Amino acid sequence: MKELKLMVFQTDFGYKDSTVAAMYGVVKRVNRSLEIIDSTHELPQFDVWSASYRLWQAMRFWPEGTVFVSVVDPGVGTARKACVALTENGYYIVTPDNGTLTHVLKEHGIREVREIDETVNRLHGAGTDETAVFHGRDLFGYCAAKLAADIISFEEVGPAYPVQEIVTLPMETPRYEKDCISGVIEIDDPNFGNLFTNINTGKALECGFRYGETVLVTIRHSEEIVFERSLPFSKTFGEAEEGSPILYNNELMKMSLAVSCGSFARDYQIGFGGDWKITVRRES
Amino acid sequence: MKELKLMVFQTDFGYKDSTVAAMYGVVKRVNRSLEIIDSTHELPQFDVWSASYRLWQAMRFWPEGTVFVSVVDPGVGTARKACVALTENGYYIVTPDNGTLTHVLKEHGIREVREIDETVNRLHGAGTDETAVFHGRDLFGYCAAKLAADIISFEEVGPAYPVQEIVTLPMETPRYEKDCISGVIEIDDPNFGNLFTNINTGKALECGFRYGETVLVTIRHSEEIVFERSLPFSKTFGEAEEGSPILYNNELMKMSLAVSCGSFARDYQIGFGGDWKITVRRES
Amino acid sequence: MKELKLMVFQTDFGYKDSTVAAMYGVVKRVNRSLEIIDSTHELPQFDVWSASYRLWQAMRFWPEGTVFVSVVDPGVGTARKACVALTENGYYIVTPDNGTLTHVLKEHGIREVREIDETVNRLHGAGTDETAVFHGRDLFGYCAAKLAADIISFEEVGPAYPVQEIVTLPMETPRYEKDCISGVIEIDDPNFGNLFTNINTGKALECGFRYGETVLVTIRHSEEIVFERSLPFSKTFGEAEEGSPILYNNELMKMSLAVSCGSFARDYQIGFGGDWKITVRRES
Repeated sequence: MKELKLMVFQTDFGYKDSTVAAMYGVVKRVNRSLEIIDSTHELPQFDVWSASYRLWQAMRFWPEGTVFVSVVDPGVGTARKACVALTENGYYIVTPDNGTLTHVLKEHGIREVREIDETVNRLHGAGTDETAVFHGRDLFGYCAAKLAADIISFEEVGPAYPVQEIVTLPMETPRYEKDCISGVIEIDDPNFGNLFTNINTGKALECGFRYGETVLVTIRHSEEIVFERSLPFSKTFGEAEEGSPILYNNELMKMSLAVSCGSFARDYQIGFGGDWKITVRRES
Repeated sequence: MKELKLMVFQTDFGYKDSTVAAMYGVVKRVNRSLEIIDSTHELPQFDVWSASYRLWQAMRFWPEGTVFVSVVDPGVGTARKACVALTENGYYIVTPDNGTLTHVLKEHGIREVREIDETVNRLHGAGTDETAVFHGRDLFGYCAAKLAADIISFEEVGPAYPVQEIVTLPMETPRYEKDCISGVIEIDDPNFGNLFTNINTGKALECGFRYGETVLVTIRHSEEIVFERSLPFSKTFGEAEEGSPILYNNELMKMSLAVSCGSFARDYQIGFGGDWKITVRRES
Repeated sequence: MKELKLMVFQTDFGYKDSTVAAMYGVVKRVNRSLEIIDSTHELPQFDVWSASYRLWQAMRFWPEGTVFVSVVDPGVGTARKACVALTENGYYIVTPDNGTLTHVLKEHGIREVREIDETVNRLHGAGTDETAVFHGRDLFGYCAAKLAADIISFEEVGPAYPVQEIVTLPMETPRYEKDCISGVIEIDDPNFGNLFTNINTGKALECGFRYGETVLVTIRHSEEIVFERSLPFSKTFGEAEEGSPILYNNELMKMSLAVSCGSFARDYQIGFGGDWKITVRRES
């Protein structure tokens, strides 16, 4: 007997009612032994960018073959495709094809993608067949459970379509030059107010940057400078003085901004997204 | 060996301290293999109505035999009964008998109800025997675990009492007429600000309503009109223009109000409960 | 084959992103069958005192041998020790040695403590070896998983060091006299606004206090009286009138303050910590 695949869920459903519980119940009716793990159900509502980032953020740490289910789906019930993607590094993602695959596609690559065949892989018989609004329960969760339980193969999800047709969000590539690198502030750490750039720390080191140095950090929002300051470039935010801003190497090997025991985002009123650009220069 | 039953928990304990963890520890001491799934621990405090609604909302999607534990218990330590109900569709509910069974009783029916015999089905020996305030841990969780692990049968929970004696909350029945239906706004969707009525969409269709039509929606609070507007009646909120209100068929086949990518409850300052009445009329 | 140990996690990471999911993925890569249970991920940020209290709050209710992982770690990446403690009552705690062990050490005792040997018990090969900031994932979670899965013995965690060297937070001992006891308000119940003192109810009864009596409660903040009032001393807050303050015996057998269906902390603006002192006197 083949081993059941782990299932990891992320949604913007929140945890204040029984929405998640209904979705998980459907999974357990498919196969009682399926193991369900919450990633987060508190993604910002309708925010496909965050869904894409958070999916990528944790994926590589899971066992190969894990089935990720992501439901941030402002277009539920409309024409967007419902799909299952198989990544180059061997994970399955069950999601609306609405931009959620952007980061994983760029960072890990996608080997194959299939549109879910609703005629066979959609929940029926729970008295809610006429419902068009809860695909997390009736379509994504249900189809993912069948795949995780090996009731259907990846091929039986539905017809494949070209990986090139996957919907992606615009995502600027960082520029690496000697002693000067630039990129965007890609996301926040909502717990501690740190901000993550898309600049790879390893590549920054290749460009001449060194831990322990002071660097000049410039942040532009809509091309206007909103932050400019010399900061220590550190391996960890634990080394900073309490309350002082630093540039450090985050847990995903990206250059990031923090205030030790504080919040960089709040203290300096800095946001994230394609319109928040950052340049880092060596000062020496 | 009989299969262990799944356990699904909902409480108003929140998730900021170790209250839930203490309750789950007790379950795992009864039998380490018991599987515990969170429904929600963020029910509005002391709100038995929400507990009743949320319990019903997810139940039907779970495997038969699942043991639900609901602890919203403003009267903990007082005379209200602690009970286990067996529903007509084969689920167990372990709960204070304080109105939490209202929706399940009305929608699914209850086959039998038993009062928990505290002399045998209450936790002892953890050094907290004198404690009267944490029945979630010492009584409901503990007794439910014994039932789920087949250490006690349903009969061994304690003495049965008449289903007619179950405490229920007042709950108005909707009225279905040709081209005009009325009911109450029963609950909100706290994630998206949608509002769920108790009007069954299938019955509305039998009364002449059709998807794609425009209908006149009137909401009264304390008999005063607080909202009156023509809205599209749609199969899904995904079809609406962003920011526009619609009437749609929700995931439990009830007529519901939404603002696509917005919040009907917040945008129009509409609440829920027996005093929020709604009438829907065909306009054609 | 030895049984896998249960793993219970508490952190201040929040649940809004994939931080917890990355940590749990690492655990599942160590051994797919390990069972992970959330205690809480919403501990107040950087608040080692709360981490210490919450760890102790639930521990005794779990099966012996359970592995607790606590990550509230303002000094991540600095000199504080990463350790595994074995308690006198047979639980393992994987944590930064930064005060988190205070309550457990005082209430249960610690048999042995070992510093985690990072050369063997730290995650490698996930492309994040250079990262110094996420010990929850790379060190505590990973080492705990190896211990729980019996891949390493407790001895193989790393070298033992004297229990006397464990970092502890200052914690005042309550005073028990005939008809008069005093202590501190140790923590809140963040769900219901109750306040827990460190006064043992059993010892209070030995000092002459009786349920049903009225007692004089005085609370001082920075030596100034901020609350003084006669309150009923009750076995449960369910017995109080709605809205009225009471002194009751909480679920851990400590004297506590509550307002039935309200919040003592909010209604009377009372906080907790070493500087919030309480005296209780019999009035008769």
